[in-house]
Amino acid sequence: MISKIVPVILAGGQGTRLWPMSRANRPKQFIELMGNRSLFQQTLERLGGSERYDAPIVVTNAEYRFVVAEQVQEAGVALGTILLEPAARNTAVAIASAAYYALDRDENAVLHILASDHAITADAAYYDAVNLADAAARDGWLVAFGIMPTRPDTGYGYIAVGDALINGASKVGRFVEKPDLAKAEAFLAEGGYVWNSGMFMIAAKTFIAECEALAPETAGAARGAVDLAKADLDFVRLDAAAFETAPRISVDYAIFEKTERAAVLPVSFDWSDLGSWDAVWAAQHPDASGNVVLGPALLSNTTNAMVMTTGAHVVIDGLDDIAVIASEDAIFVGRQSQAQRVGALVKQLKADPATRALTETHQTSYRPWGGYTSVLMADRFQVKRLFVKPGKKLSLQKHYHRSEHWVVVKGTAEVTIDGQVSVLTENQSIYLPLGCTHRLANPGKIQLELIEVQTGAYLGEDDIVRTEDDFGRAG
Amino acid sequence: MISKIVPVILAGGQGTRLWPMSRANRPKQFIELMGNRSLFQQTLERLGGSERYDAPIVVTNAEYRFVVAEQVQEAGVALGTILLEPAARNTAVAIASAAYYALDRDENAVLHILASDHAITADAAYYDAVNLADAAARDGWLVAFGIMPTRPDTGYGYIAVGDALINGASKVGRFVEKPDLAKAEAFLAEGGYVWNSGMFMIAAKTFIAECEALAPETAGAARGAVDLAKADLDFVRLDAAAFETAPRISVDYAIFEKTERAAVLPVSFDWSDLGSWDAVWAAQHPDASGNVVLGPALLSNTTNAMVMTTGAHVVIDGLDDIAVIASEDAIFVGRQSQAQRVGALVKQLKADPATRALTETHQTSYRPWGGYTSVLMADRFQVKRLFVKPGKKLSLQKHYHRSEHWVVVKGTAEVTIDGQVSVLTENQSIYLPLGCTHRLANPGKIQLELIEVQTGAYLGEDDIVRTEDDFGRAG
Repeated sequence: MISKIVPVILAGGQGTRLWPMSRANRPKQFIELMGNRSLFQQTLERLGGSERYDAPIVVTNAEYRFVVAEQVQEAGVALGTILLEPAARNTAVAIASAAYYALDRDENAVLHILASDHAITADAAYYDAVNLADAAARDGWLVAFGIMPTRPDTGYGYIAVGDALINGASKVGRFVEKPDLAKAEAFLAEGGYVWNSGMFMIAAKTFIAECEALAPETAGAARGAVDLAKADLDFVRLDAAAFETAPRISVDYAIFEKTERAAVLPVSFDWSDLGSWDAVWAAQHPDASGNVVLGPALLSNTTNAMVMTTGAHVVIDGLDDIAVIASEDAIFVGRQSQAQRVGALVKQLKADPATRALTETHQTSYRPWGGYTSVLMADRFQVKRLFVKPGKKLSLQKHYHRSEHWVVVKGTAEVTIDGQVSVLTENQSIYLPLGCTHRLANPGKIQLELIEVQTGAYLGEDDIVRTEDDFGRAG
Repeated sequence: MISKIVPVILAGGQGTRLWPMSRANRPKQFIELMGNRSLFQQTLERLGGSERYDAPIVVTNAEYRFVVAEQVQEAGVALGTILLEPAARNTAVAIASAAYYALDRDENAVLHILASDHAITADAAYYDAVNLADAAARDGWLVAFGIMPTRPDTGYGYIAVGDALINGASKVGRFVEKPDLAKAEAFLAEGGYVWNSGMFMIAAKTFIAECEALAPETAGAARGAVDLAKADLDFVRLDAAAFETAPRISVDYAIFEKTERAAVLPVSFDWSDLGSWDAVWAAQHPDASGNVVLGPALLSNTTNAMVMTTGAHVVIDGLDDIAVIASEDAIFVGRQSQAQRVGALVKQLKADPATRALTETHQTSYRPWGGYTSVLMADRFQVKRLFVKPGKKLSLQKHYHRSEHWVVVKGTAEVTIDGQVSVLTENQSIYLPLGCTHRLANPGKIQLELIEVQTGAYLGEDDIVRTEDDFGRAG
């Protein structure tokens, strides 16, 4: 029996060019950019379209482990493994770690390396390409998916297609860095060049052999990180000491540009890396006026606009080639066609302590038990809206600087205060005095929501002492 | 002894062209557009600069009576009279009513008719002009302040300056409607034309005589409205039945364009009607890049921008001639130089039930006792932040569809529930069950703030039965 394909989803990135929607605590892959599922969830859902796929390996970092687990569960797919990277070291060691992990379980494992933040229309052409790449990978090729270019795009790396192999794949001629417009136009006119999608199909065995030969430091780091990995709840934590010895290098530089085994499969399914707002605009299929509008808006005499808003009503008048992206606390306005420049602006915001938080956190934070939205912050009080998933429990905790009032507005809460248990339902409230040891749980079948009013001289998230926790955060 | 000048401040307008900041429930004149005082308050403050001014008459509508009273108090000026218009009938009857009211008290009253929403630099040139106009008014002239034009503006009406009188004033040649650009350029080149500022200096006696002769319906309506007016707390309510017979006509059409007594005083102090965002931009003195920024923002490669934001951080990249105006729930983006078009867009928003509220209400509503900010609205609950001024009391009230939880976060609350009185201080809370008769008061010396969580199937403002009220709203 031929083993199934193991999807390896890279979900640790922190894209900044889709700011203000993409932020460090919930980047691009975890937000709903294309419909009512996150890009990561859409990536998971595509796996359901082929019987060749096994349960996925998700590679991410510790900070995203709960959002990954939650979104996997919500998407209703069988969870494979969540490998946690102890540090950001680019794609070479991330893929090598996944490859060692898979190889330890099946020496014939074939891996489909997938980005978690691309938009792909998973039609028959897509699955045909997967099958062709699978066959080539089993033949010993490290296969890059190359997208047939439809315009002289300067935002992608290119691959020159070399000598044909069987089954539609070809040897790689060479890899070309993001070109200037003249070069990109020449590639398009000339033919024989495809966009490097960052998706690959590889036999773990072949990849590891090439990695050990061409990038031994990366291979050594990955081998150690997997050998010394520790299971932690639903996660596998790669060993930090080993992992951190890996050089910061992409899989393209470390392996694909050097190996004799590199192949490319030119494909023409609908694909976008959604690398910036202009790419989202293109992927969303603009209307007859060239406008894409996600969220409440009124456009008057406006063309080629990319509008996304999470709440505020956007009104645009008399503009062409404009991007307006409005989150609760930040608004970007610029040329739609120049939206790649957002990355540089985010660097500026990050460098200034006054605006740094705008690049890091959304107003809603996700926790393993649910999460909370910051509703109002004032000098000596703040208001949060908490949501707790059915059956989940927060840590047993106390605060030294704040008291809390909880008003249940949906569902049922079980509240323990200094050992005393109360059950509260909608429209009931309870007071948690400063210094009390308390715990909140949702014993019910529906989500619990409550309004929390905190008062005190210091209201930072770090005023918390956890004495017990279902999610390994105590002590 | 010569009587002082009675300022008459027209504060009933509902400008839409400064949307989303200006809204029906708190229009332009009551918001902080130029510094940390509202335009209305700045108008009041200018009165302090001359000993010739008496306490002002403010003409406004019933809906704005509490915000007017609050802002008068905050500005610390002696309150004259607040005349309440029962309906919107344009400026002729508003001014005629104020003139009758003043005439009944002093037959030699001279009135300075002022807009409440203009920006004026009150320097020596301003007060000199006031004195000149005063002298001309006492000589029997109805004096319009004409601003010496500095550019061929098409947003103002013009006045052709006629034969010179004494003291710098001249007879009016003619009034000219807002011209097209060619005409405006010709006026500027030719000279002898000034902008009609909408400010006037008139002897009440002369004005009334002219009004009775030239606009008898207006005069009759105003006479009746004043004769049958009723004092209501700090306000004088003009009689609705009489007032509503007035034709909808401006004082320019009804009187100034017809009377033989019209004079114009050309002046050159710093003045703007702040008629739209481009006018605000000009009045705010753009920086070297042509940008005006009010609120948190980062501008990169951007010129001639008008930015105002009440909260969200605005980031603009690579644009010229752009206006970005961001309130909590709506954002306008358009050309700064074309911002007059906002008025038409607001009409569109108003016509759609889904967006109508965006033109009517701000998230903060002001009440005679203080006010509240809507913090969070959900299906079966909402959260408000209430503020109650020292010594003030809300009505004795009950609700049929909602329960309320109050958490005091600042100051002291006196809460009466079904006759039972409790005093709550910071960090204490209380529950108001559905149907209870309750009352909230601030017995303290500092502002009381509390967080209110409402739960219930219907949460509309109209679910309220008032049985007693300090502000005449019960029954």
